[in-house]
Amino acid sequence: MSQVNVGLCGLGTVGTGVVKLLKDHADEIKYKVGSEINIKKILVHNLEKERDVAIEREWLTSEPSELVDHPEIDIIIEVMGGIEDTNLLLERAIQNKKHIVTANKDLMAVHGQKLLRLAKENDCDIFYDASVAGGIPIIRSLTDGLASDRIQKIMGIVNGTTNYILTKMTDEELAYEPVLKEAQALGFAEADPTSDVDGLDAARKMTLLANLSFKMEIDLDDVEVTGIRNISQEDITFATSLGYTIKLIGIASIHHGKAEVSVEPTLLPKDHPLALVKNEYNAVYVHGEAVGETMFYGPGAGSMPTATAVVSDLMEAVKNSRLGISGTGYVTPQFEKQLKEDNEKYMQYFIRMEVDDAAGTFQKITNVFTDEDISFAKILQLPSDREKTAEIVMVTHKISKEQLETSRKNLKKLDVVNRIISYYRVDGED
Amino acid sequence: MSQVNVGLCGLGTVGTGVVKLLKDHADEIKYKVGSEINIKKILVHNLEKERDVAIEREWLTSEPSELVDHPEIDIIIEVMGGIEDTNLLLERAIQNKKHIVTANKDLMAVHGQKLLRLAKENDCDIFYDASVAGGIPIIRSLTDGLASDRIQKIMGIVNGTTNYILTKMTDEELAYEPVLKEAQALGFAEADPTSDVDGLDAARKMTLLANLSFKMEIDLDDVEVTGIRNISQEDITFATSLGYTIKLIGIASIHHGKAEVSVEPTLLPKDHPLALVKNEYNAVYVHGEAVGETMFYGPGAGSMPTATAVVSDLMEAVKNSRLGISGTGYVTPQFEKQLKEDNEKYMQYFIRMEVDDAAGTFQKITNVFTDEDISFAKILQLPSDREKTAEIVMVTHKISKEQLETSRKNLKKLDVVNRIISYYRVDGED
Repeated sequence: MSQVNVGLCGLGTVGTGVVKLLKDHADEIKYKVGSEINIKKILVHNLEKERDVAIEREWLTSEPSELVDHPEIDIIIEVMGGIEDTNLLLERAIQNKKHIVTANKDLMAVHGQKLLRLAKENDCDIFYDASVAGGIPIIRSLTDGLASDRIQKIMGIVNGTTNYILTKMTDEELAYEPVLKEAQALGFAEADPTSDVDGLDAARKMTLLANLSFKMEIDLDDVEVTGIRNISQEDITFATSLGYTIKLIGIASIHHGKAEVSVEPTLLPKDHPLALVKNEYNAVYVHGEAVGETMFYGPGAGSMPTATAVVSDLMEAVKNSRLGISGTGYVTPQFEKQLKEDNEKYMQYFIRMEVDDAAGTFQKITNVFTDEDISFAKILQLPSDREKTAEIVMVTHKISKEQLETSRKNLKKLDVVNRIISYYRVDGED
Repeated sequence: MSQVNVGLCGLGTVGTGVVKLLKDHADEIKYKVGSEINIKKILVHNLEKERDVAIEREWLTSEPSELVDHPEIDIIIEVMGGIEDTNLLLERAIQNKKHIVTANKDLMAVHGQKLLRLAKENDCDIFYDASVAGGIPIIRSLTDGLASDRIQKIMGIVNGTTNYILTKMTDEELAYEPVLKEAQALGFAEADPTSDVDGLDAARKMTLLANLSFKMEIDLDDVEVTGIRNISQEDITFATSLGYTIKLIGIASIHHGKAEVSVEPTLLPKDHPLALVKNEYNAVYVHGEAVGETMFYGPGAGSMPTATAVVSDLMEAVKNSRLGISGTGYVTPQFEKQLKEDNEKYMQYFIRMEVDDAAGTFQKITNVFTDEDISFAKILQLPSDREKTAEIVMVTHKISKEQLETSRKNLKKLDVVNRIISYYRVDGED
């Protein structure tokens, strides 16, 4: 039986999962791909460290060239993370005609397009399903399963940490800080949770999904990002009473050839499929022109789920390698990047204001909106805690981002408006 | 640019959708596969019939050999249905080394394994993602995306008609007959709904999913099938009050190398991802050993959703054809078929009984279960409409099918039990 040799970069949680899977499912994998898969070298920092999985000592090396320049290694698995050094390492591997399987969303979001082009020039492939929503074969589904369709919109819960936090805040009516602490204690959030809670992790993943779906090179910098730090219990309570659930959603949409990508807290109708995705689970909701609504749901992270994605990609790379082919997946972007302007981005908004509880307040506020041609789906007024003040919560019909910004400025100028407490996008009601 | 020629068998709703997609998305498809795709011939019954889509008259033929023996046709798309004649047609096409893309679950469930073997012998491929849960790339996900994992269990809502009916019965508290009539009027159910409501359609799809997942040749006859005709409003009301939703679920599971496949009305916890799949939507819930829980959700049928699956498969066939390869997907079954015995099938059951409302009734009933070592998760007793009778509803802990059958027999022998009204599997609480 033929043999394929693999160099594994990284032996952390995912790398360990990959070794375990290759070992535990060896027979079935060999049967499926018609080839033995051998780990030849594993790149680690610390050669002496105790490992959670049985490995051969001679596999370990701290020298990248022992993998990327190795004449017998056909495929490099990159599960060590990092951006710039890892980019150089993979460039070298590609120039040496080695296929790449990676779980590195940071790298792919920043350097992905360039690496994909380089791989195509060198007749090899980069597979990266593990880099977005680890256990869900979303990349595969977008490139193959839905290949025939035009993707119009993607809405993704692609960060397990923030979804866990928001689920607990909603279901158990707790505030952000204590839930974050609990998440950290349970391992659902990092000691430094910035990348997750500020939406940066989700933004990187949405960059990849948007590029694939719209076949244009959208950059990380084109993604507007708002995290979850400022979501209060009151926001959640108001949203719930109006029939919504708040989630951190990555939204990528395209209209008349112009795209927009953002990550922001978003109100979804309570019974929207995405609204029901709980805790650390991820889900990607895809709206295709012909297929309609589909959704892919599963674990977003974790050693074994991510390892299944890496090894499934590895099996594809092995099959390609044996057949002497490549490039069955990657397609250079077909379209020039075109992004929507603010006056072309249409969505509903939920706005909370603290106002004077006096005659004429409501009138003055509605005048601001009428001047901008904005009408409402829902309005709620309640007494506030503070004397002689009230809270007004409004859900607009679809308006442009430009209309929103102008209204906000004009509202702030009103003497009756003390402050705009919060405002969020509302989606999923089409 | 290279050209690939296609013969299309059938020009009904799906065939029309395929022609439309190939036309409307021609540029993007051509860009992705690096090839022009030409329809050479279309097989129809009625050459004179008015068509909903623009086609060339010279494409139409009522003679199968003009497709399957055509020297220039590389790929046959089969969307005309039928089993025996279609089987012969495809066998001939395969022997002429043509790749097949089909949406025909009936054919694949009955003759699929044999056709797949024949294709492998002839170095060509059969793609059939459109035959199960049309708009959801589930076959692709099982064979590629989750290739590295061992599938332990699949639970599928794979029939849109029955899911539509049960959703309406549940949400609107209506009885089966009027909902079926409404479904027929709206086009969600056929004039003769037998195949759908008796679970046969779902059984065929589960046969395909089980074969793929467990890598053994399970036959349609191995699937135990119960449809939805006997689900009453009272069943639904009781299930709801105990925290469950009733769905027609196809369940395929494997344990210690032994498989079981069934289609039956099943109670799921109200917040299980499958319980929230409504109306005509399908969903396939996959539990993999390494990945954990994943779910794939989308339209199960419909001209355009099914056409997207057919054309996505076609694009894969075109790529293979251009690269001169085949067999990248199909793997001959790895394991001998082994099915579970009744004493190896463990599940929870919901049982409704009408009993005498008298002292000692409860004791006699619980004795029957205690004798079989059966304990309960939930019990509910309510007065019945009829004088001096009561209803008892019980949810057991996990018991074997054998234990259930013995208990049922023994309960019927009790004088205090008037009748067992209904009983259903309960799943999804793990």
